[in-house]
Amino acid sequence: MRNQMRIAHYGIRIMSLTLTSLQNIPFIRQGDPLADILLKSLKEQSLNLEDNDILVLAQKIVSKSEGRLVNLANIQPSPRAIDLAPEIEKDPRLIELILQESNEVLRVRKGVIVVEHKLGFVCANAGIDHSNVMGEGNTNEDFVLLLPEDPDASAKKLREEIKQRTQKDIAVMIIDSHGRAWRNGTVGICIGLSGIPALIDERGWKDLFGYTLKATIVGVADELAAAASLVMGQAAEGTPAVHVRGYPYPLGEGSLKELIRPKDMDMFR
Amino acid sequence: MRNQMRIAHYGIRIMSLTLTSLQNIPFIRQGDPLADILLKSLKEQSLNLEDNDILVLAQKIVSKSEGRLVNLANIQPSPRAIDLAPEIEKDPRLIELILQESNEVLRVRKGVIVVEHKLGFVCANAGIDHSNVMGEGNTNEDFVLLLPEDPDASAKKLREEIKQRTQKDIAVMIIDSHGRAWRNGTVGICIGLSGIPALIDERGWKDLFGYTLKATIVGVADELAAAASLVMGQAAEGTPAVHVRGYPYPLGEGSLKELIRPKDMDMFR
Repeated sequence: MRNQMRIAHYGIRIMSLTLTSLQNIPFIRQGDPLADILLKSLKEQSLNLEDNDILVLAQKIVSKSEGRLVNLANIQPSPRAIDLAPEIEKDPRLIELILQESNEVLRVRKGVIVVEHKLGFVCANAGIDHSNVMGEGNTNEDFVLLLPEDPDASAKKLREEIKQRTQKDIAVMIIDSHGRAWRNGTVGICIGLSGIPALIDERGWKDLFGYTLKATIVGVADELAAAASLVMGQAAEGTPAVHVRGYPYPLGEGSLKELIRPKDMDMFR
Repeated sequence: MRNQMRIAHYGIRIMSLTLTSLQNIPFIRQGDPLADILLKSLKEQSLNLEDNDILVLAQKIVSKSEGRLVNLANIQPSPRAIDLAPEIEKDPRLIELILQESNEVLRVRKGVIVVEHKLGFVCANAGIDHSNVMGEGNTNEDFVLLLPEDPDASAKKLREEIKQRTQKDIAVMIIDSHGRAWRNGTVGICIGLSGIPALIDERGWKDLFGYTLKATIVGVADELAAAASLVMGQAAEGTPAVHVRGYPYPLGEGSLKELIRPKDMDMFR
């Protein structure tokens, strides 16, 4: 890979970005050692981790390993959840969980509640997932899956475990799929990261004529999340992890907070 | 590459997606033969096009080749543009062009007008670009660059020219960078495409337990645009084209229209 590098305006740029889905990730249950599972899968594919590689994980496997499954049978809907249910046409217990996971409700429509999640970002249904979810006792109808409580911390823990086992400095990113305000189709977005900045601030960079480029801050973590999401697919849970090599920016510290637009800068709430 | 394929729920899935930026794309001027330029660059990198490859192009080079440079000196601002200028703090002639390129103004703030572009999508400043723009006569201060008039048609023309020269069935996508309603940082998005669907409708796909996945339509063209944008970088114009191999979905017909949420489905206007 090294011979494919060239010097560009932003330090070293690698010409090719390669995303490889990890095969043979088993069905994940609470307490499963994700670092071990990922390293085993990498080894089976003869992928040796190198410094600056990135592992991108679907939220689902992180949440499951952290025991974020909730049995709706144990949820008592509040009066507000019961009130909202006819309009949304969802189980009032699920609505209750969505409200509990959120700071604020932005919009309510049939099938969807758009909220500000407790983690700060705006999303549908507080990211609570109904698909590919099964309780430990094989009765899956009433189980839903919440997002990790602190996805940055989850990413950091995995990164450190992998560093300890491999001595490699990699980044870890946790992604989910979100809808957008004005465009059809969901896209992968970053909900937690460690070892990689979420944004690249290109303000002040010069263009080819020496003019200063204005107001360009690039959401590189979300761009990488979208790329990884493409490789993961959606419906099956067979490929919830993606190995990334050739990321064209330097790694470094980062956090989800960078990606969240402050409320007073939000024109569309 | 073929030996890396496996059968998945959605036909054939390739394990690795590789995005390679094309080097040595020259500065593009009106009338330049983009197909020739791209094929020359691919050849110089020893990249031989194969069926199902995708070429992703920055809007900028397509617009320039199509002569979408406008000299602001020739623009007479309307009273409305003059009215808006103090609040937006932009050149009234630029504001006039933004208005001319738009169906509707959604929001106005210092430095930004959020509009529905004539092409149908919501974006800032009608996608009009000030950076890396130079008039044919080397006096670049007053020149700005509009989006291609019909990006789907631009993509189709290039795809057909490349098919004619190489006999390869590829897809072509034209991308730009957009801000998002609630997240910091711009991301690459698709503004025109040919030979590839913009959305993959996964509704009705079964999850691992045989349950039907609901309401999942994936914006794969935007995911690929984001991935390509990461490889292109932003500030320099050296890598405005990206070669993609290993795209995990079947190619087919597609159009920008797929990506545009109908106004009556828009909760955030």
